[in-house]
Amino acid sequence: MVGEGVGSVFGRKLRVMTFGESHGPAVGVVLEGVPAGLPLAEQDIQRELDRRRPGQSPVSSPRVERDRVEILSGLFEGKTTGAPLCLVVWNEGADPSSYEQVRTRPRPGHADLPYLLKYGHVDWRGGGRSSGRETVGRVAAGAVAKKLLSSCGVEILGHTLEAAGVRVEREVEDREIRENAERNPMRCADPEVARRMEEEVLSAARRGDSTGGVVEVRALGVPPGLGDPVFDKLDADIAHAMMSIGGVKAVEIGEGTRFARMRGSEANDVIVLRDGRITLLTNRCGGILGGISVGTPIVVRLTVKPTPSISLPQRTVDLERGEETVLELRGRFDPNLCPRVVPVAEAMLALVLADHLLLSGRLNPDRWGGKG
Amino acid sequence: MVGEGVGSVFGRKLRVMTFGESHGPAVGVVLEGVPAGLPLAEQDIQRELDRRRPGQSPVSSPRVERDRVEILSGLFEGKTTGAPLCLVVWNEGADPSSYEQVRTRPRPGHADLPYLLKYGHVDWRGGGRSSGRETVGRVAAGAVAKKLLSSCGVEILGHTLEAAGVRVEREVEDREIRENAERNPMRCADPEVARRMEEEVLSAARRGDSTGGVVEVRALGVPPGLGDPVFDKLDADIAHAMMSIGGVKAVEIGEGTRFARMRGSEANDVIVLRDGRITLLTNRCGGILGGISVGTPIVVRLTVKPTPSISLPQRTVDLERGEETVLELRGRFDPNLCPRVVPVAEAMLALVLADHLLLSGRLNPDRWGGKG
Amino acid sequence: MVGEGVGSVFGRKLRVMTFGESHGPAVGVVLEGVPAGLPLAEQDIQRELDRRRPGQSPVSSPRVERDRVEILSGLFEGKTTGAPLCLVVWNEGADPSSYEQVRTRPRPGHADLPYLLKYGHVDWRGGGRSSGRETVGRVAAGAVAKKLLSSCGVEILGHTLEAAGVRVEREVEDREIRENAERNPMRCADPEVARRMEEEVLSAARRGDSTGGVVEVRALGVPPGLGDPVFDKLDADIAHAMMSIGGVKAVEIGEGTRFARMRGSEANDVIVLRDGRITLLTNRCGGILGGISVGTPIVVRLTVKPTPSISLPQRTVDLERGEETVLELRGRFDPNLCPRVVPVAEAMLALVLADHLLLSGRLNPDRWGGKG
Amino acid sequence: MVGEGVGSVFGRKLRVMTFGESHGPAVGVVLEGVPAGLPLAEQDIQRELDRRRPGQSPVSSPRVERDRVEILSGLFEGKTTGAPLCLVVWNEGADPSSYEQVRTRPRPGHADLPYLLKYGHVDWRGGGRSSGRETVGRVAAGAVAKKLLSSCGVEILGHTLEAAGVRVEREVEDREIRENAERNPMRCADPEVARRMEEEVLSAARRGDSTGGVVEVRALGVPPGLGDPVFDKLDADIAHAMMSIGGVKAVEIGEGTRFARMRGSEANDVIVLRDGRITLLTNRCGGILGGISVGTPIVVRLTVKPTPSISLPQRTVDLERGEETVLELRGRFDPNLCPRVVPVAEAMLALVLADHLLLSGRLNPDRWGGKG
Repeated sequence: MVGEGVGSVFGRKLRVMTFGESHGPAVGVVLEGVPAGLPLAEQDIQRELDRRRPGQSPVSSPRVERDRVEILSGLFEGKTTGAPLCLVVWNEGADPSSYEQVRTRPRPGHADLPYLLKYGHVDWRGGGRSSGRETVGRVAAGAVAKKLLSSCGVEILGHTLEAAGVRVEREVEDREIRENAERNPMRCADPEVARRMEEEVLSAARRGDSTGGVVEVRALGVPPGLGDPVFDKLDADIAHAMMSIGGVKAVEIGEGTRFARMRGSEANDVIVLRDGRITLLTNRCGGILGGISVGTPIVVRLTVKPTPSISLPQRTVDLERGEETVLELRGRFDPNLCPRVVPVAEAMLALVLADHLLLSGRLNPDRWGGKG
Repeated sequence: MVGEGVGSVFGRKLRVMTFGESHGPAVGVVLEGVPAGLPLAEQDIQRELDRRRPGQSPVSSPRVERDRVEILSGLFEGKTTGAPLCLVVWNEGADPSSYEQVRTRPRPGHADLPYLLKYGHVDWRGGGRSSGRETVGRVAAGAVAKKLLSSCGVEILGHTLEAAGVRVEREVEDREIRENAERNPMRCADPEVARRMEEEVLSAARRGDSTGGVVEVRALGVPPGLGDPVFDKLDADIAHAMMSIGGVKAVEIGEGTRFARMRGSEANDVIVLRDGRITLLTNRCGGILGGISVGTPIVVRLTVKPTPSISLPQRTVDLERGEETVLELRGRFDPNLCPRVVPVAEAMLALVLADHLLLSGRLNPDRWGGKG
Repeated sequence: MVGEGVGSVFGRKLRVMTFGESHGPAVGVVLEGVPAGLPLAEQDIQRELDRRRPGQSPVSSPRVERDRVEILSGLFEGKTTGAPLCLVVWNEGADPSSYEQVRTRPRPGHADLPYLLKYGHVDWRGGGRSSGRETVGRVAAGAVAKKLLSSCGVEILGHTLEAAGVRVEREVEDREIRENAERNPMRCADPEVARRMEEEVLSAARRGDSTGGVVEVRALGVPPGLGDPVFDKLDADIAHAMMSIGGVKAVEIGEGTRFARMRGSEANDVIVLRDGRITLLTNRCGGILGGISVGTPIVVRLTVKPTPSISLPQRTVDLERGEETVLELRGRFDPNLCPRVVPVAEAMLALVLADHLLLSGRLNPDRWGGKG
Repeated sequence: MVGEGVGSVFGRKLRVMTFGESHGPAVGVVLEGVPAGLPLAEQDIQRELDRRRPGQSPVSSPRVERDRVEILSGLFEGKTTGAPLCLVVWNEGADPSSYEQVRTRPRPGHADLPYLLKYGHVDWRGGGRSSGRETVGRVAAGAVAKKLLSSCGVEILGHTLEAAGVRVEREVEDREIRENAERNPMRCADPEVARRMEEEVLSAARRGDSTGGVVEVRALGVPPGLGDPVFDKLDADIAHAMMSIGGVKAVEIGEGTRFARMRGSEANDVIVLRDGRITLLTNRCGGILGGISVGTPIVVRLTVKPTPSISLPQRTVDLERGEETVLELRGRFDPNLCPRVVPVAEAMLALVLADHLLLSGRLNPDRWGGKG
């Protein structure tokens, strides 16, 4: 069969369309729906791209990319014009030679096999379209969404909650994420736990293996009323966004899977008055009830599977020869995906929330200064 | 603020639009995208509606509804015509009197508060639009999707894996779900575990409390190649669909949250030849890699929170008086939502898969018999 | 081939999904995106449905339908709730017997032939899904859109500009449409021209033939800034909406086809100051420049083809016998479609404008009175 | 007000998103939905871009652009992969200086005024986003759509039917369009008429004025059954696509506005058997009945308004000074838009038809040669 290609558009009023393959000329995104008048500079985007860039620590792969963003459209005299923003990053460090071996031998745990079955003709170099490099477009668009959100008082925070079996068992304060997460390679909010995570991750990596973990993202300052009933619930859109990130296999809102063992009397967040405002005493719901934000922080957790690329020998099938074989992947890989998933998950949360803010008509461009 | 209403449309080529409130004249759905020529009778839909109907056992609420479906359009001489199917169920057992007390006092854990904040003017009777009664439309549309899937050899199975802390700890075979799940009130695939679940559920209910649990749905016979890269991944669409069900707070694919503690060498499903066909030796991925089906069973788990309606007194705020108060809900409620979520989750999985089958052009109407 | 059915959804933020066949149980629409708090009664909708109802004059077909609308959802205590409105009209006067002859002999000029080729299995009674009866849903939804627009000071006017070769050659004032169009069977703004139209229409009808014409719709009070660049231009959406009405074969904006013979110096509307406001001296552009409203009246003209159903004998093919034959349609038909297209075209214009108003965030629900 | 930007996405299964401004770094398009395996080279796209390029004859503006396309993604070893194609053209000949005068003085007939009212902050250089340069993306994407269509036996033809009051009054054969239209600057299918058109166009231009005209596009070989009922009718999508082209003010299908003066007995295309195939004796309907293709050629006509840029003095308002003024545009402009609209209209027709072919599942990639 020859497969048809759709699926690269996300959002309703703030829409992104990503493009690009790991070893093609470029990766990028077109983002439409950004109101006119938002101050924006390449460095706003570059800052976020630098966070997702590989090769920055022992726990990320060593592919060298500068990942310089170019804004091809939608910007005029330092402000958006309401026209689509095309953000492009040229591929530089691509070296397809190490992938020659996987051209006919799909890697276990990767998209190689279903892509071959679906499309027939596949750009197999470095995973092609299914490569994590596609997230460059997400992070670039997410940076613009963060700017929009920030002008409405919404802040996005992300960190690694668990990696390689090491978890921050206690409650993490927002402040800790802000202060610590970007200061260690694991992006963990607790520096001490970060050290143990890194040890375990590297220990597995030395044995040619990889590890999984849990990433948490939060949104603070989200006004009540975002999200729509039934199918376009805010948590449904968030779950969609998060599960679309490669390697994510579970999405939880608020207490998530812990709700299974709770009683209703524990699970319900009772409603109280605080300084004349109606709010919730606790936030087990993770900021969303009936699919609509209630004004408390939005809390989302993602389970990230172990990096599928490992050096240990793995069984697979040689498609040309039609026989089973053993694959030993060369090169070095991200031993744990969590630190690099953090900025991507933040970007996706920002895109969903900015879209719903725009849909709700609550964006306040007056805060941007100037007429717009 | 006066809220705007969107969000009731789901799907791309097979699209559903649900409508109706708990205590309005009717609930229902318009379903478009069903190809012409599919044999369909009201009883195909009625069978599924009967499964979600309340009042059938000690573990479901006693609201009495016949829930008879009427097909208003899209059917001619026993077959679909390609035109939209409008499926309507008239509300009969509605008794809004018991809800008078919650008109100005939002129930904790329910959508009452965010709806009031978002819309200002709300049909507060029985949860209105946010009521579980909205799922009548989902289940009716899902019944048609199941007919479509069945003509392609795809089977959907659902069961309660855990409730009130009681879990089927061992591997559950497909056969057990088919044989046992519909034969006990908990819809559990293991009759012995079902009994213990029911005990725990009823024990909590007698104390005025409710319990949560885990529902699992599977799809067998799904061909490889369904799903689209990047944002329209099959698992992203499934996560969206499942998280849009009221009470669902976590969605897992395959091993789900267990991936966090695995090594890559455990997590990867190696690729093998079986009878000349390329397949996976294990199915930890839950049938989906890179967002695209690989041909193994699709496995999804949902965490269902405890029913938010409980008889125990709960703090809330009286919006008219602007003061805190205590709410004691009268009446009887579903003590555990899992058994009733099972057919809804099956319907949502069926809708997503039928949509992707139609998108992929793989539907085979020749199996339907007759010219179409 | 067995056709797949899509195409019944229209709009982006204000979305309608129509359903129903000419001789099925009912026709109707689900409308979502209406903000909460809009006062609405069945009579608001009934008034518009009564305008499109057949059997009211010598120039419309005599099928007797009361066309009583029922609101199944989305309304509570006389105001919308933001939830989808399901509006249903039961089919009563359906008499399929007269259509038996066309079951295997497609009528020239109708959708019979392409539907048979596309779907294989078709509800052939009275045109089924392709019947003009489908417009009941459009007019019902349009009535709600008109209510929304009216609260923003937007008025929709429609009239028959030309029928059976008789045309209002002079400029028609808005006032004339308001005062005269609903007072004659042709819905013509000039009573004298209306009489001549009617004569010509009936004269052709007596010979067993039908006639075409031109319908004009206008929107007054549309604020500047509606419409989006490139593909979602306001005039592109209007053209889409109008061309989707059965029998419409041309759509013109402003001077329309007359622009072909103009010079730029005649065609351009120069920009002037009037009472301190920037506006256009003339309105040849029909209220839209670059796809975006400029604040002057929006003017749209539709060419309506002659009713395809005529009594004169016509060649066709008997599909069962596989041979050419001659079809003589019995019964009486609309001798000219223009008067009945007028309320449908108004409805479609209202839906497009209300959608763009909602997209632009310019709706002002404070005018509705009450909190929402 | 600060406007929000949407509207740059078109299509359902074959989706384009254009980006770029007249004087920004680049213009282009991302196209998704192209099946894997389609042979494609930059020259396939370049050929069409060269047709729309300015500066090629006395009747087009002299801006010098090489308009070299770069394919940034979606192509591997000379074939599409099913991933989005990003097609970029760098802006080279941009000279914004001549536009300085229009920064605060909106040009009559242009989008300047509504853009300023909608967005506040506008890239005014050369029309920015509303410039005809945006059509580079449409033509590039259309070239890919033509390749798809061509593999299904569908051919797209376009020509100028009328310009500056000079019209090809007789029936134009397909063959004439193929042979003659690209051989004269007016893109007219009749060389003799072309000469008279050019004379009239240049005569008006010499007086500082511009002229309008009519462009016709046809699609041959379109299979029956494309298009969907009600709102997604093939002619509705075509009308949308065509009216979205700058300068187009009327869209006609088949006999178009001439239907207004026809009788039903003239307007209906009777149904006949030809060589055992059911077809129409005439093609007044322009290949579409009930919104669905019938297998005869699709015929569409567009009225193109005179180029709004003229050298003659025109009244406008100086927005900074808040007073009326007179604008005299310098530079040379396209004296008639028709020749340059031809390839754009062809591209839009190709995009609509390819989208519907993909939606219908009728594409036959086996014709592409190779496995896919």
